[in-house]
Amino acid sequence: MDLRRRALEIHEEKKGKIEINSRVKINTKEDLSLAYTPGVAEPCKEIKEDRDKVYKYTSKGNTVAVVTDGTAVLGLGDIGVEASLPVMEGKAILFKEFAGIDSFPICINSKDIDTIVETVKLISANFGGINLEDISAPRCFEIERRLKEELDIPVFHDDQHGTAIVVLAGLINSCKIIDKDIKDLNIVIAGAGAAGIAISKLLINLGIKNIYICDSKGAIYKEREDLNGIKKEMAEITNPDSQRGQLKDIISNKDVFIGVSAPDILNYKDIEKMNEDAIVFALSNPNPEIDPLEAKKGKARIIATGRSDYPNQINNVLAFPGIFRGALDIRAEEITEEMKIESAIAIAEIIEEEDLNEQNIIPDSFNKDIAIKVAEAVKRLYENGRK
Amino acid sequence: MDLRRRALEIHEEKKGKIEINSRVKINTKEDLSLAYTPGVAEPCKEIKEDRDKVYKYTSKGNTVAVVTDGTAVLGLGDIGVEASLPVMEGKAILFKEFAGIDSFPICINSKDIDTIVETVKLISANFGGINLEDISAPRCFEIERRLKEELDIPVFHDDQHGTAIVVLAGLINSCKIIDKDIKDLNIVIAGAGAAGIAISKLLINLGIKNIYICDSKGAIYKEREDLNGIKKEMAEITNPDSQRGQLKDIISNKDVFIGVSAPDILNYKDIEKMNEDAIVFALSNPNPEIDPLEAKKGKARIIATGRSDYPNQINNVLAFPGIFRGALDIRAEEITEEMKIESAIAIAEIIEEEDLNEQNIIPDSFNKDIAIKVAEAVKRLYENGRK
Repeated sequence: MDLRRRALEIHEEKKGKIEINSRVKINTKEDLSLAYTPGVAEPCKEIKEDRDKVYKYTSKGNTVAVVTDGTAVLGLGDIGVEASLPVMEGKAILFKEFAGIDSFPICINSKDIDTIVETVKLISANFGGINLEDISAPRCFEIERRLKEELDIPVFHDDQHGTAIVVLAGLINSCKIIDKDIKDLNIVIAGAGAAGIAISKLLINLGIKNIYICDSKGAIYKEREDLNGIKKEMAEITNPDSQRGQLKDIISNKDVFIGVSAPDILNYKDIEKMNEDAIVFALSNPNPEIDPLEAKKGKARIIATGRSDYPNQINNVLAFPGIFRGALDIRAEEITEEMKIESAIAIAEIIEEEDLNEQNIIPDSFNKDIAIKVAEAVKRLYENGRK
Repeated sequence: MDLRRRALEIHEEKKGKIEINSRVKINTKEDLSLAYTPGVAEPCKEIKEDRDKVYKYTSKGNTVAVVTDGTAVLGLGDIGVEASLPVMEGKAILFKEFAGIDSFPICINSKDIDTIVETVKLISANFGGINLEDISAPRCFEIERRLKEELDIPVFHDDQHGTAIVVLAGLINSCKIIDKDIKDLNIVIAGAGAAGIAISKLLINLGIKNIYICDSKGAIYKEREDLNGIKKEMAEITNPDSQRGQLKDIISNKDVFIGVSAPDILNYKDIEKMNEDAIVFALSNPNPEIDPLEAKKGKARIIATGRSDYPNQINNVLAFPGIFRGALDIRAEEITEEMKIESAIAIAEIIEEEDLNEQNIIPDSFNKDIAIKVAEAVKRLYENGRK
């Protein structure tokens, strides 16, 4: 495939995708004496007296660490920190291009939760936010929870919440088309990894009652005995009528299927079992849980994937640049559930009512206005005192 | 003082001195699909198969971490990681401006040697080199030694070796003026911290026999009972005739005074005790061990300081950009003593014979050709197979 060759070429030609530049000119000795010794002692002294001034005199307030341990990179799995670097550099340039945020990869060569948490804490002084990236589940949940507790800057695991926000945006717009209240939806989610769990939690926080999570063994329900950790926790707050069975059973009479699991696990007959006006978000990448044409054959009304070559691409880039832009601008100490929900609403609202249709529930991921709108939504919360 | 206000202004206006930019354009969906998913998977897979290709497809090979724990920042001491950040950002922009190297601050919020060493190891995957900065002695020695042992990329404590290299360059040119063999010099060094120790070691490695280190209690000699660690080690390889006494005694009959200690500890009468053609490098900053005019009164022939407002400024920026440029270009696994010596010679040779005089032994720190010459010197060693 030509894409493969060209992707390698562009990476080799540029020798990496990020560079670090000076914001100040260094053309004369005087420039040097202001930006470096002896002048630089002045901001140092100011910050020593008042640590908060690190936001005033340094890059901290606009800098986000893209933190990974290389364990769950793209669909490639545990490929190690070196091999994860092209993705982390890619993420960093998206932060810059879509939200003007300076972002730098921190690749931690350990799979130990304590070590990762400690390392991030130790090196966090010059970062205004932490974006966790491609860390495998269930470790990612504890790492994020502990870092949120222990740091006073926003910590955001994009594979969880970025996906969840864009999925929610898609559901909000889908509901406008099929004229249902989002809270009344019956939703089956295939996949209990980072994305599946985060999507479930966000939808629950929105007030949706009927959520059914399936892992590779089928529905998660309270009485299932092989559950532990996060799955056990999710069994308590989903599947209210304790449905049991495989995904192909559970999908019956649901309004929405959200797949964040594995390719080609459904066919058109499964979709036919769903309620009328079925919504199918098949987000496994690059090969979705069901091909859009197959889903169509099963009478799905609205179909979204993770791919850019089909309509309705669920793409994290719609969420994370704007969320961080907003959070950095107001110096939020965390990214709250409310911020995520408002971001999803903002993304959904990008599509004007007259443009909204089954083929257009998610805005074009290349629309750079989106990050601005999302950031505004986050900042509005702050202004409204609901931070 | 006006400098103070302007330094604060420039730091506040720019909100930090570094920014992270994209080397690749992201103007179309196709750009995105090459630099990020799905194209980015290709370099990831290549690196997974052959870890060495991280140099081919990422920024690693041109990126240096500026690592500090904030314990010995400028003359300000232990001011903490946040307050050290303006210096680290300053260092990063010097790397870029003088050598085209991408450099990023890693501020480690710990004073524990094990923790610092482990943290640097854990996050080193995307760095081609480690520049240690403003870490207090004697901790800096062990941190550097262990990192050199355990990492396969260059590790360089600039406060030690950068200073030592430029001092050596100054001595080389001084010897041309006074027509002495550098190996025959009698040298007293005031200060047994990072710079004093590194200068001593480099001069010893060059073959200079008569080196006398003084700390605040006077000469370091084998039999002194309050010595430990690095000072004990230095007592074994310096002070061959076991001279004892205060700096003001030891300075008698020496050819060279090198001060990396404290302001105003000498007067002209001390300089008068030195040998004819005395060389005085008073490098305490901003206030030297002896004022140049006072040293002149004591009949010093050649005087250097750390200040830009006197002739002969000993400035690390003459060394570290070129050293790292050369080391990165040849993918050296370490920065060797030989590289340091060749760098010093290269810096000295910047001044043409006809321009060399007592007021001009050290080239202008703003001369951006110097880094190129130093890098060439480092690379020549490699080409000559003496890596």
